[in-house]
Amino acid sequence: MNIDSTRSWTKRRDEKAKRLSKVKHLADGRILPTDKMVEALEMLISPKDKVVLEGNNQKQASFLSAVLAQVDPEKVNQLHMIMSSISRPEHLNIFEKGIAEKMDFSYAGPQSLRVAQMLEDGVLKIGEIHTYLELYGRLFVDLIPNIALVAADKADQNGNLYTGANTEETPTIIEAAAFKDGIVIVQVNEITDELPRVDVPGDWVDFIVEADKPYQLEPLFTRDPRHITELQILMAMMAIRGVYERHNVQSLNHGIGFNTAAIELLLPTYGEKLGLKGKICKHWALNPHPTLIPAIESGWVESVHCFGGEVGMEKYVAARPDVFFTGRDGTLRSNRAMCQVAGQYAVDLFIGSTLQIDKFGNSSTVTSGRLSGFGGAPNMGHDPRGRRHSTQAWLDMMTGDDPVGRGRKLVVQMVETYQSGNRPVFVESLDAIDVRKEAELATTPVMIYGDDVTHVVTEEGVAYLYKAQSLEERRQALAAVAGVTPIGIHHDFRDTEKLRKKGIVALPEDLNIRRTDAKRSLLAAKSVEDLVEWSGGLYHPPAKFRSW
Amino acid sequence: MNIDSTRSWTKRRDEKAKRLSKVKHLADGRILPTDKMVEALEMLISPKDKVVLEGNNQKQASFLSAVLAQVDPEKVNQLHMIMSSISRPEHLNIFEKGIAEKMDFSYAGPQSLRVAQMLEDGVLKIGEIHTYLELYGRLFVDLIPNIALVAADKADQNGNLYTGANTEETPTIIEAAAFKDGIVIVQVNEITDELPRVDVPGDWVDFIVEADKPYQLEPLFTRDPRHITELQILMAMMAIRGVYERHNVQSLNHGIGFNTAAIELLLPTYGEKLGLKGKICKHWALNPHPTLIPAIESGWVESVHCFGGEVGMEKYVAARPDVFFTGRDGTLRSNRAMCQVAGQYAVDLFIGSTLQIDKFGNSSTVTSGRLSGFGGAPNMGHDPRGRRHSTQAWLDMMTGDDPVGRGRKLVVQMVETYQSGNRPVFVESLDAIDVRKEAELATTPVMIYGDDVTHVVTEEGVAYLYKAQSLEERRQALAAVAGVTPIGIHHDFRDTEKLRKKGIVALPEDLNIRRTDAKRSLLAAKSVEDLVEWSGGLYHPPAKFRSW
Repeated sequence: MNIDSTRSWTKRRDEKAKRLSKVKHLADGRILPTDKMVEALEMLISPKDKVVLEGNNQKQASFLSAVLAQVDPEKVNQLHMIMSSISRPEHLNIFEKGIAEKMDFSYAGPQSLRVAQMLEDGVLKIGEIHTYLELYGRLFVDLIPNIALVAADKADQNGNLYTGANTEETPTIIEAAAFKDGIVIVQVNEITDELPRVDVPGDWVDFIVEADKPYQLEPLFTRDPRHITELQILMAMMAIRGVYERHNVQSLNHGIGFNTAAIELLLPTYGEKLGLKGKICKHWALNPHPTLIPAIESGWVESVHCFGGEVGMEKYVAARPDVFFTGRDGTLRSNRAMCQVAGQYAVDLFIGSTLQIDKFGNSSTVTSGRLSGFGGAPNMGHDPRGRRHSTQAWLDMMTGDDPVGRGRKLVVQMVETYQSGNRPVFVESLDAIDVRKEAELATTPVMIYGDDVTHVVTEEGVAYLYKAQSLEERRQALAAVAGVTPIGIHHDFRDTEKLRKKGIVALPEDLNIRRTDAKRSLLAAKSVEDLVEWSGGLYHPPAKFRSW
Repeated sequence: MNIDSTRSWTKRRDEKAKRLSKVKHLADGRILPTDKMVEALEMLISPKDKVVLEGNNQKQASFLSAVLAQVDPEKVNQLHMIMSSISRPEHLNIFEKGIAEKMDFSYAGPQSLRVAQMLEDGVLKIGEIHTYLELYGRLFVDLIPNIALVAADKADQNGNLYTGANTEETPTIIEAAAFKDGIVIVQVNEITDELPRVDVPGDWVDFIVEADKPYQLEPLFTRDPRHITELQILMAMMAIRGVYERHNVQSLNHGIGFNTAAIELLLPTYGEKLGLKGKICKHWALNPHPTLIPAIESGWVESVHCFGGEVGMEKYVAARPDVFFTGRDGTLRSNRAMCQVAGQYAVDLFIGSTLQIDKFGNSSTVTSGRLSGFGGAPNMGHDPRGRRHSTQAWLDMMTGDDPVGRGRKLVVQMVETYQSGNRPVFVESLDAIDVRKEAELATTPVMIYGDDVTHVVTEEGVAYLYKAQSLEERRQALAAVAGVTPIGIHHDFRDTEKLRKKGIVALPEDLNIRRTDAKRSLLAAKSVEDLVEWSGGLYHPPAKFRSW
């Protein structure tokens, strides 16, 4: 045996105790004073620490990120930041100031241009770009945090946390730090004696601090029906008939966007006319989309589990506990990690949009000069090969008679052949291939891989890619629905006829859809005001969506 | 608009309130009396309820399952049971008694023969067979529980729970029920005023009951080094040299078994001799295997995140907080759901064993007459196509120069060519294909699919399946290491030579391993007693593993 008896096995615990003792004079029990936070962070965070700063696509620990940007880089530097989303300017300012050095992240939507620029300038080093769920996984493996900076609505004196509708990833981040002798610091909007409910036990929390103002929260999933076009309505009709009805889709996830909002708003009208109510789209993994209100009110929806909340939907959700997951206090309980698990493994279908699709169906939202990352879509937009249970939709994807064959998840891309600005969606080669070289990434940042895509819906028709017997047939099927883009323009119409006969491509007429029926009058709600009316006044849209 | 203003949106909440009021006379706050539990369950559970009964491969809510088996089937019947693991006789007795009717589950190891028999007799209806993670996902989508029956170590009067080392899936099950107006009932070993720590907030719990005896807990991950054979040592040497070292494996999951126990016990000897310490196998997702103690004590292991605990390892784990995840009270914090996420997405390699492998590498532990289910292995034993971050091992699996190519997870099968009882592991066709027909399953219960497997290690050599350019080449590579089984026996030795030249097959000599070096003397611990010694007396093996 080769045991080193002098080795300490409590280095992390000892280090934590040392740091906590340094701020003892500042803290009142678990409460740190708002105006001493710069000082406190300078004592609690050490150079090279792994720091998880909460911030996903909606909720931001905005007070703590602002404080972190003010610490003295002589004292706190070379931090390794771990963030679901790079959303706020100070998330990058800390790199320019020399406080942080390396970044592991999932999504950089609002800051994607600046990330690319800073990377080129050598101001920022990227660890890896993840989907949400794999980043959470690494928090328990090789990205174990020393520090967690997170946000909650309320805390009591013992550090018990109330997150309200926006539980999101807070418990997951806290768990990784709290149980590996990391330091957990939570900004709250209010410290109170009695909490409406407990979302995270105070036992897991080291410090709470009352923020100078409530944490930032983005209404990311609100789509104004006013902007839904008739082309989008046509595609939504094809998705409902050609995919949802055909494969008997019971459970699903919708991405963000007007395309899927159109589907949500057609269920109570077009879907109802087709007699589909109670037959499809019963169980959902998605945020509380306001555009889902009419379908809920019409009795389409049995359950919705949410990644996060949505600004303005709080009262509506609280009034519909049979549909949404809510707590003892009556408000929404979201959970980003578990909803990603559900969205990956437990639903029949994922449908989303994208910016570019190549001839084999690989797609990406990463375009030149923008390193936007992945978010959660690839986790849901692939065939989960660890799945073993079957549903009718999943079995419907089986082709051939392999005795050890299996079904597939439905992964649907829904795009118009051209983006705004006259840029084709269907392209010979993804911009992401160039971005890989520029940013020196190990692999091309593909959002959804072509061999995971089962269907592509465009204004031209539906391509049933899962039926394609070869890569060449897949390419042809894509070309058949790619319109006059570089991929579609040289397509031979006679090939489309063959593919239609084989059931690999369906045009609107094959689905009994008349293009002229795709009218805005089909939308169950034509404006945000209509959504408010559907909700019986329970939905309170943010000011920017109010036009009345 | 088509709003039904008479519709209730609080049916679940109202139903829950009604049931809670029925047992009010029995309960003292949140505490139900031990000797009134049959009566209590008869009032809290209604016919056709979805009931999650805790029980994974280790921890069982054994008091509550025994009580459930005693309720009057006139009052409680047609239950839809949802269980990670069918482990105890009463889990099936409730079906024979007519209390339960349908079962969704993951694993039925100890009861797999009886499950198959009852299915044939029509006593039990199977919903679906899952892996753990997809079953948890469905708890939030289309298997939302009405009732959760779970187990914890201690509770206080407010229902706050302490799970100690065995947190496992308890919080996940509770969350699904608690936030959808389900009823959460927890058996605890002890009700106390002060908890060592809080694992689940009392806010999520409806009732606690002191069990008549502590919940059942199985030492499932303990392997006595005494039973490790020299063939297993040879395979372990090949795995370390031919897989771990070659691909620079940093993070990994080991399945249960003597094969992987051998690897764990060779790291501090053979691995050390190769100069690999600090270079490979640093981060682990696995239960606290006693056979990992020597590697931990020799400084190989930086971190271990656990699915669950292991009987006897409590004090050792508590003394090694730099390695294990522990709470404020000093004991292990496990989390089955998050460890499955980590084991799926955040590690380089999964390695496991199996009972049958067909000629294309598909494998299963389901054999004739036994419906054993899946557990967690398929979730970790596949290439997670939602993964986007890269590691060196993952990139090493890339073949070809596709500009949108990507790496792969290492999925390794490690088997002797023959099982005990002279049954070949490599077979023409899996028994699972027949089981599918017998049990009328929608698909064949394959544990790991051949196209997910990157390496197969046998006593003959290593097959690098990820390098095979065709199905035929994959078949040949498997045949080359399949010994004298039906798959290996007709293999042409000249093909092996070609495959060795291409690097698709390696024999021990290709890895610089002499078969005669594979001796038990290489094991860092040769007995459970040795493990205790390595642990400095901190490991306390259960009585059945003590021979001194």
